Amino acid sequence: MPDSKSHLEAIEAYLTNLQDRICGSIESQEANTRFREDAWKRIEGGGGRTRVLNNGSVFEQAGVGFSRVSGNTLPPSATQQRPELAGRSWTALGVSLVIHPLNPYVPTTHMNVRFFEAAADGKDPVWWFGGGFDLTPFYVFEDDAEHWHAVAKEVCSKFGVDRYARYKKWCDEYFYIKHRNETRGVGGLFYDDLHEGGFEQCFEFMRAVGDGFIEAYLPIVERRKSTPFGDREREFQLYRRGRYVEFNLVYDRGTLFGLQSGGRTESILMSLPPRVRFEYGYMPEPNSPEARLSDYLKPRDWLAQNVSNRTQSHS
Amino acid sequence: MPDSKSHLEAIEAYLTNLQDRICGSIESQEANTRFREDAWKRIEGGGGRTRVLNNGSVFEQAGVGFSRVSGNTLPPSATQQRPELAGRSWTALGVSLVIHPLNPYVPTTHMNVRFFEAAADGKDPVWWFGGGFDLTPFYVFEDDAEHWHAVAKEVCSKFGVDRYARYKKWCDEYFYIKHRNETRGVGGLFYDDLHEGGFEQCFEFMRAVGDGFIEAYLPIVERRKSTPFGDREREFQLYRRGRYVEFNLVYDRGTLFGLQSGGRTESILMSLPPRVRFEYGYMPEPNSPEARLSDYLKPRDWLAQNVSNRTQSHS
Repeated sequence: MPDSKSHLEAIEAYLTNLQDRICGSIESQEANTRFREDAWKRIEGGGGRTRVLNNGSVFEQAGVGFSRVSGNTLPPSATQQRPELAGRSWTALGVSLVIHPLNPYVPTTHMNVRFFEAAADGKDPVWWFGGGFDLTPFYVFEDDAEHWHAVAKEVCSKFGVDRYARYKKWCDEYFYIKHRNETRGVGGLFYDDLHEGGFEQCFEFMRAVGDGFIEAYLPIVERRKSTPFGDREREFQLYRRGRYVEFNLVYDRGTLFGLQSGGRTESILMSLPPRVRFEYGYMPEPNSPEARLSDYLKPRDWLAQNVSNRTQSHS
Repeated sequence: MPDSKSHLEAIEAYLTNLQDRICGSIESQEANTRFREDAWKRIEGGGGRTRVLNNGSVFEQAGVGFSRVSGNTLPPSATQQRPELAGRSWTALGVSLVIHPLNPYVPTTHMNVRFFEAAADGKDPVWWFGGGFDLTPFYVFEDDAEHWHAVAKEVCSKFGVDRYARYKKWCDEYFYIKHRNETRGVGGLFYDDLHEGGFEQCFEFMRAVGDGFIEAYLPIVERRKSTPFGDREREFQLYRRGRYVEFNLVYDRGTLFGLQSGGRTESILMSLPPRVRFEYGYMPEPNSPEARLSDYLKPRDWLAQNVSNRTQSHS
């Protein structure tokens, strides 16, 4: 662990730069629409900059937030893994984003990288990293999901042979809508409580995930953004966005912790889709493209096919 | 307490008739649109009939559900007030409704009446009633809210002098969106764990609330359903419906208990509005009709003005 202040400065410098680069790459897809920024402060300590782009030609809404906040008393709900830290002072830094494209053939996505540190009596502070990225298509193109997972695996590759498999599984388990018996989308990476390998390696992994996100998502946007669509696809997208709302408000620990701990409501709920539809008893037509989505909303080994293709081409 | 079966039959007979009457009064506002019914069974025991009307000229969606369900093991989350009952077998009967009108000048409303019974070792079963009704306008007409609360008070009048005041307060406290620091609407009645006065009186109160709902809501619909509106009012309605989603998915105990205990998801979530809009950082124009709503989203003594008018007219 480096000096107790400089590591926070290093993380902040990376995260604010990451936010800039992500917003730049989103804006690069738009002719005229730009992010607007709200800088905010938190009474207990710290603040953030929330950036939202609305009504673009490609992105109906993109929210990319940076925050660095601190508090005097960690609530017990934040320390399920480490109850002994309840009540300690803490600092959290992170970048979090949710992107809701206009075209239903472009998937929704979410990415988050975060660092958490809690004071420990007379010892070095306790710290951990968390984060990941996941993809929520309305119409699944297997190419896109394979590319997404290939980048996820590449991001993990230099951090141990099983890291992709572990974080991919964790992602499937975390983004699971229990009352629908389906995953939120086709997954990606999710990790929390990461401290293995020491601070420097964990921080390097944060950077790999943050940088990898752009590489994972932008090519999919490029590929799908011009696909023609009509009311049918739009209505299906609005309906499926309802599941996003259900997950975020019923299950997402980050959202619930944020709302319960007096976080900045507008920044927390910028994850919610700009327009949504709920429909009692909706069932897609059998064998329609809309019906096929459910085949993909369960854990799946997205890279198995690639591996087997590669094996075949060598045989 | 009457014989252990006949009281359940009496409650069921009242509730199914109430569902019929409410659906009839909703349909009486529509030229051609009718409820469709799904009858369903629950594997563990019991079932229900869920009725939904969609895309009416007055009601964009109305969901009115009856259910009678039973289980072998009460989850602890259902017995916060009586932890000694956890694990017992139970039966629950209720009618629950949420109505989302098309015209933004007609308020959204929710009503629920329910009965709960849990087995108790070697003793009479433990039972209680719960329910209430509440109103969520987008544009507040004080006349409407006063009428609503006058009926609520009348419903309570023969059950004790303080009952309206207690249940009105409980409603304000229950339908409170903490992260927005506002009530969900202008309130009404909310009660739970009701057993005071004995079974017969409690059942009579259930009937007073159920019957009172029609008398409270229909005149407001009649008064406002033909008010002209445009995109501005519609967009505001869609935005405010987002708060309804936030409350129901983050705070509503009935919704969360239902989803967590393996209830019928479609029936539980028929409370969600058919179309919704979320907007980061939305602020109504100062002094606009939209801005005035927030003045009403805090507890208010709706009948004080009437009392003082009446007093004045007598003086």
